[in-house]
Amino acid sequence: MKFNIKRPDQAIRPAIEDKINNLTKPKGSLGRLEELALQMCLIQQTTEPELKHPCNVVFAADHGIVDEGVSFSPKEVTWQQLFNFVKGGGGINFLCRQHGFELVLVDAGVDYDGLPYDRIINKSIRKCTDNYLHGPAMSRQEMERCLESGASVVDSCQSKGCNVISFGELGMGNTSSSSIWMHYFTGTPLEQCVGAGSGLATEGIIHKYEVLKAAVDKYSGDGSVEDIMAYFGGFEMVMAVGAMLRAAELGMTVLVDGFIMTACALMAVQMHPAVLDYMIFCHQGEESGHRLMLEAMGARGLLNLGFRLGEGTGAVCAYPIVESAVRMINEMDSFRGASVTKYFK
Amino acid sequence: MKFNIKRPDQAIRPAIEDKINNLTKPKGSLGRLEELALQMCLIQQTTEPELKHPCNVVFAADHGIVDEGVSFSPKEVTWQQLFNFVKGGGGINFLCRQHGFELVLVDAGVDYDGLPYDRIINKSIRKCTDNYLHGPAMSRQEMERCLESGASVVDSCQSKGCNVISFGELGMGNTSSSSIWMHYFTGTPLEQCVGAGSGLATEGIIHKYEVLKAAVDKYSGDGSVEDIMAYFGGFEMVMAVGAMLRAAELGMTVLVDGFIMTACALMAVQMHPAVLDYMIFCHQGEESGHRLMLEAMGARGLLNLGFRLGEGTGAVCAYPIVESAVRMINEMDSFRGASVTKYFK
Repeated sequence: MKFNIKRPDQAIRPAIEDKINNLTKPKGSLGRLEELALQMCLIQQTTEPELKHPCNVVFAADHGIVDEGVSFSPKEVTWQQLFNFVKGGGGINFLCRQHGFELVLVDAGVDYDGLPYDRIINKSIRKCTDNYLHGPAMSRQEMERCLESGASVVDSCQSKGCNVISFGELGMGNTSSSSIWMHYFTGTPLEQCVGAGSGLATEGIIHKYEVLKAAVDKYSGDGSVEDIMAYFGGFEMVMAVGAMLRAAELGMTVLVDGFIMTACALMAVQMHPAVLDYMIFCHQGEESGHRLMLEAMGARGLLNLGFRLGEGTGAVCAYPIVESAVRMINEMDSFRGASVTKYFK
Repeated sequence: MKFNIKRPDQAIRPAIEDKINNLTKPKGSLGRLEELALQMCLIQQTTEPELKHPCNVVFAADHGIVDEGVSFSPKEVTWQQLFNFVKGGGGINFLCRQHGFELVLVDAGVDYDGLPYDRIINKSIRKCTDNYLHGPAMSRQEMERCLESGASVVDSCQSKGCNVISFGELGMGNTSSSSIWMHYFTGTPLEQCVGAGSGLATEGIIHKYEVLKAAVDKYSGDGSVEDIMAYFGGFEMVMAVGAMLRAAELGMTVLVDGFIMTACALMAVQMHPAVLDYMIFCHQGEESGHRLMLEAMGARGLLNLGFRLGEGTGAVCAYPIVESAVRMINEMDSFRGASVTKYFK
């Protein structure tokens, strides 16, 4: 699948910086709000950015590698939580209600019959990826379908007026795929990429590492970005990659959630480096390696609240800060307008 | 002035913890939201906390020490910015609009005739504190009036239904007072307490340090908490101390802003240690020493966005996270309610 992602035109940058530097505050004194405002203005090519119809898309799928005991949570939690989200009782639900997000649920490949497809978009590839300890998790054709499905979900959000979008995931076992992607694309030794996931203790983390190490050792693919994506990926994760790329192609702002979505962002950046200009990294979680992955992209998380839940919770929780940045540049008065002595150059 | 502040009764703690630990998420996976929810529940002595009529009170005043060239911003910026806030064009204004805060402006002692007292509460002690390089900034009687004035502003907020309140300040020169308070109450060497304020370069910081060092060296008071408060304080800062203490006495949640309000919190804690249980530290700024002051109280800031503006901006910007915590405990379903396998003890 082809994506045509351009870096935002920098010609407007001086006008944006001039506006920000003349707001009634010491230069730089609203810190990251000023950086965010600049980024939003560049993405939207305006000095008056807007946030419209925010959506949080949760891609859900199951992982064959869970058979190896790498996940703290049992596999059935994937479909059970999806029902919980439909009912409105999950972590992501209250955050979406609080910040006015439309919550879009996508079955990317959940191991359950009888999901309510009137409330969940059915993009299921199949019930579960294959166990990548023994071979590729998915075929290259399935990977392509995931990228297309992710992109099409973004298209439908955009058609409703959305210009700011976050992605979340639900899939027991997906920190394992994330750790392996991180290992390949940051060059970090695998042991520094593996963490507790949803709650493993030390013994469990060691077992998880050993399983992933064995999978990486046995891997005999061509080492290309696409091959690693398909071999070790999850359906929900590859859909998120396609979704991020399409969102950037459409000039939307992409809110990046925690460890797993950061791994998907890293994958997207391998494919199209310009996607990074459209991304706001919202939460730096405690999963070991998250910070390293952000650093590899020259990024910093906005929040650091110790979340490790996924679902897009870190991204949606950070949204009001992005909104603050937009309000700052649109609503604050200038020194001249407010007749305040401008006490710096 | 006497304040009667009690630690929240801990008897309800097991019921709160049980509720939080049975929400549909791995235990601890919403990190600091879980800590905040526990704190809010303890303050309000309930498992269903509420946030009502949030107010941000900005105390404004001028400082005699500014004559010594310790402030980057000229003194007239205090009254000019106060007018800007009345018009709605300041940094704190857009944040209050965004998060539904009532903005309460208080003249604690601003050097200007003709402030609009239909829009600003007049609690002016006098136009400016005295220069503490040569003697106490204010008398003990003035200090008492400040504490009472701060408390009375909180009373009026509470009478409108407010149960969550943040405090901000406006006063060129007030990082100097904050640095000295910090020095006395954390035992940190003065040079580690002095920073850039609203924008000093290195040379300016060295001069500021030398002035403050001379003031501290000349100080010959009795060393009591009250004496240091009056000698080196600002009218707006002592009012904030009184306001924090009254808010805690009334069982309100206190949102603590940046460096200066953290110094006021530190002062309040010296007087009544139990006040700490009612405080949420919202922003850890870049002013050198802020982190040290938080550590001295065993606290961590919720946000770290590089703000150095004051006005309550860091506190109000963090408010949606406090709201998220309250929504989490009130709106998330339990494992039993959602029929999700509870995969941990």
